[in-house]
Amino acid sequence: MSFTDSAAADVARNASVASRQLAILSNDARNEALTALHQALDKNRASILAANAKDVELATRAAEDGSLSHSVLKRLDLSRPGKYDDMLEGILSVRDLEDPVGKLTMRTLLDEGLTLERVSCPIGVLLIIFEARPEVIANIAALAIKSGNAAILKGGKESNESFAAIANVVSEAISGSQVPVPSIQLVKTRDVVSSLLAQDSFIDLVIPRGSNDLVRYVKENTKIPVLGHADGLCSAYINSDAKASTAVKVVVDSKTDYPAACNALETLLVHESLLDSVLPEVAKGLLEKGVSLRCDQASKDALTKVVPAEKVAQVSLATDADYNTEFLDLVLAIKTVSSTEAAIAHVNAHSSGHTDIIITESREDATRYMNSIDSAGVYWNASSRFADGMRYGFGTEVGISTNKIHSRGPVGLEGLTIYKYLIRGDGHTAGDYHDGPGGRKYLHQKLSVDN
Amino acid sequence: MSFTDSAAADVARNASVASRQLAILSNDARNEALTALHQALDKNRASILAANAKDVELATRAAEDGSLSHSVLKRLDLSRPGKYDDMLEGILSVRDLEDPVGKLTMRTLLDEGLTLERVSCPIGVLLIIFEARPEVIANIAALAIKSGNAAILKGGKESNESFAAIANVVSEAISGSQVPVPSIQLVKTRDVVSSLLAQDSFIDLVIPRGSNDLVRYVKENTKIPVLGHADGLCSAYINSDAKASTAVKVVVDSKTDYPAACNALETLLVHESLLDSVLPEVAKGLLEKGVSLRCDQASKDALTKVVPAEKVAQVSLATDADYNTEFLDLVLAIKTVSSTEAAIAHVNAHSSGHTDIIITESREDATRYMNSIDSAGVYWNASSRFADGMRYGFGTEVGISTNKIHSRGPVGLEGLTIYKYLIRGDGHTAGDYHDGPGGRKYLHQKLSVDN
Repeated sequence: MSFTDSAAADVARNASVASRQLAILSNDARNEALTALHQALDKNRASILAANAKDVELATRAAEDGSLSHSVLKRLDLSRPGKYDDMLEGILSVRDLEDPVGKLTMRTLLDEGLTLERVSCPIGVLLIIFEARPEVIANIAALAIKSGNAAILKGGKESNESFAAIANVVSEAISGSQVPVPSIQLVKTRDVVSSLLAQDSFIDLVIPRGSNDLVRYVKENTKIPVLGHADGLCSAYINSDAKASTAVKVVVDSKTDYPAACNALETLLVHESLLDSVLPEVAKGLLEKGVSLRCDQASKDALTKVVPAEKVAQVSLATDADYNTEFLDLVLAIKTVSSTEAAIAHVNAHSSGHTDIIITESREDATRYMNSIDSAGVYWNASSRFADGMRYGFGTEVGISTNKIHSRGPVGLEGLTIYKYLIRGDGHTAGDYHDGPGGRKYLHQKLSVDN
Repeated sequence: MSFTDSAAADVARNASVASRQLAILSNDARNEALTALHQALDKNRASILAANAKDVELATRAAEDGSLSHSVLKRLDLSRPGKYDDMLEGILSVRDLEDPVGKLTMRTLLDEGLTLERVSCPIGVLLIIFEARPEVIANIAALAIKSGNAAILKGGKESNESFAAIANVVSEAISGSQVPVPSIQLVKTRDVVSSLLAQDSFIDLVIPRGSNDLVRYVKENTKIPVLGHADGLCSAYINSDAKASTAVKVVVDSKTDYPAACNALETLLVHESLLDSVLPEVAKGLLEKGVSLRCDQASKDALTKVVPAEKVAQVSLATDADYNTEFLDLVLAIKTVSSTEAAIAHVNAHSSGHTDIIITESREDATRYMNSIDSAGVYWNASSRFADGMRYGFGTEVGISTNKIHSRGPVGLEGLTIYKYLIRGDGHTAGDYHDGPGGRKYLHQKLSVDN
């Protein structure tokens, strides 16, 4: 076993032991640790920002010589107006959320004196791998503590100095609380990611926070379940009866409100009957916002007729690959379809299962679409940009999942819990329940879950 | 791509397409297919039993020359009294369960005219890999259809003839219903398992039904989430204040009611103060049932003093490995502990997270134990044998999960569903919601989920 393998095993084992202690702390005790964390990060603002400035300086040089993207640089900078305060405020909002642990979700009387209960509990140990954003440390530490999970955090090399500074403050803040210190471990060793991903006997869930490439790398290199989505290939279908004004509003917002987000629109399907009516209006709104349109032949022909000369260059012919591409930019693929069924078939074949839209005035078509599309979110006459934990009212968001099990769509604190079954008896034995003479029968009587 | 790889890809792709059609069928349409399945299996009883007899004949010879275990032979035989009728009856019980699809579990008014709903839906495509039991085909086909999931079934070579006969009947029965035929595919190709396990873009969940070795093989050879447990290392802890009569009843039933089951007891922890009082009584009950006891030094010394001469051979010294062994036989490892905390530490380190018991008269100790033990089931004064979907009142059981995400413990139909988020709006755009002048605010008003 290499040094990093053995270091990773130690970290994971310590997290596992701590997670058992953390799991039985009261909500008050967990909240007190969050209050302490908030105070410590507030008190040490100057030193953390000084450390962050060093990261930003190195990253600025890297961005200048082209070895780092400007968006990473932007995400790294904790001194941007409001960012540090938002991070602090986030800890308190998480603290003030309803306790996700210990919720009774089922209660059954199996027999006289024999009761079955299902109660929510923490998952155990989370591994969070993130890239540039240093505020993720505070964010995830708060979510983990609130949900009673231990967390191992591994940051990217760009945020090295910020990470070390915040790590010290977090450890010190927690050490004064009832939360065991190894509940939140910040791993500074380099090249340790693959060793951590191999710790499937101690780590229960991996949450990658960063680029699609990071998410894909994690999914391909671990047996541990992964919460996250590798792609956000969202689509909108404009049905034959769609109102032009609704189509324009929804499509333009979905594409242009924040094109780099995973919930931004990437593919537009348009019913063939709308090529000369609704499509030109939608295209006008998109072109004005600077969006390039990659069209199939039919939609390109229709648009070429009506697009003003100075914007013709923004309209081009799509390749097959464009319908499988998450542009994350002001680019949109457009395809003509002959029916709702054709749209459903396209989306279920090409969508990444994140969020897909239908624009229609028909409740019947909307319902069929919403039932048929196999995605975490299916929206009727509303922007894909609503796919977000804050907007859903979850208070906070761990990430957005395109998994088909456990959690789907925006994941709040509930996604960091599972449940256990508790039975209370009085010496009850299973052998007493049988069809023969003298055998007992199960009552299976549903009981209220309100305490 | 090899022939089996390409065949597996075809099967998985067809299942995926069928799953989308199946997902939108009404509960009535799914139930009609189950009625048809029941009738067809009833009508073709003679030919299926004839095919099964061929399997049994081959297996009997294999059992005689020692190349097959007698328990596999027993599980293979569909002609055992009541077995075929139980299989038929099971289809109707699944049919009559509450529809697990389309359940509204959350509804939020985001803003005027903008509503968010969370609705249960099928997972998609299930892969079920099983060994000898041919009735699993009918069982799983019924569960899959009821929950709106497509299923790919792959059986073991011992049940080849039964499998082919049942497969024909299932396909024919379904072809007369609205359920698309590729919703249930029975794969007869040999050596196709690893190719199927590679189809993670089409298959959403693998359910291995069979030996621990099978479950472990599947878990180690796929990126698809696996529902199942590789081990059932259940324990019981007898606390210092335990009543002897309760301890005897619970421990003897847990160990001897069905020793080959995953929910059978494998490890007994006993408080040191009970070595000369409660332990001898419990040991007496176990020894009478023919259980061999593998004891640590302290418990062996205590028992040697009191065990009758003719049973002394059943008491031996345990090795470390015995505390990590799922015996699945009339063997029990016994260990002396000095406190509840020591018992908790032992269980969290050695248990497989299936089901663990505390025997105590103290509500306080029981509560601490139930909170601290990280297992799917934690029982107070009740037998581990209650860990079962039928006994929990789920009507049927897909399997028992020791996973920490999605489903834990006995898994019923609910475990074969996930949810999607539906938003209904009227041209709502996310850009309208902001803190600036004229910005809209989210209402996030919880609405009732009762229709």
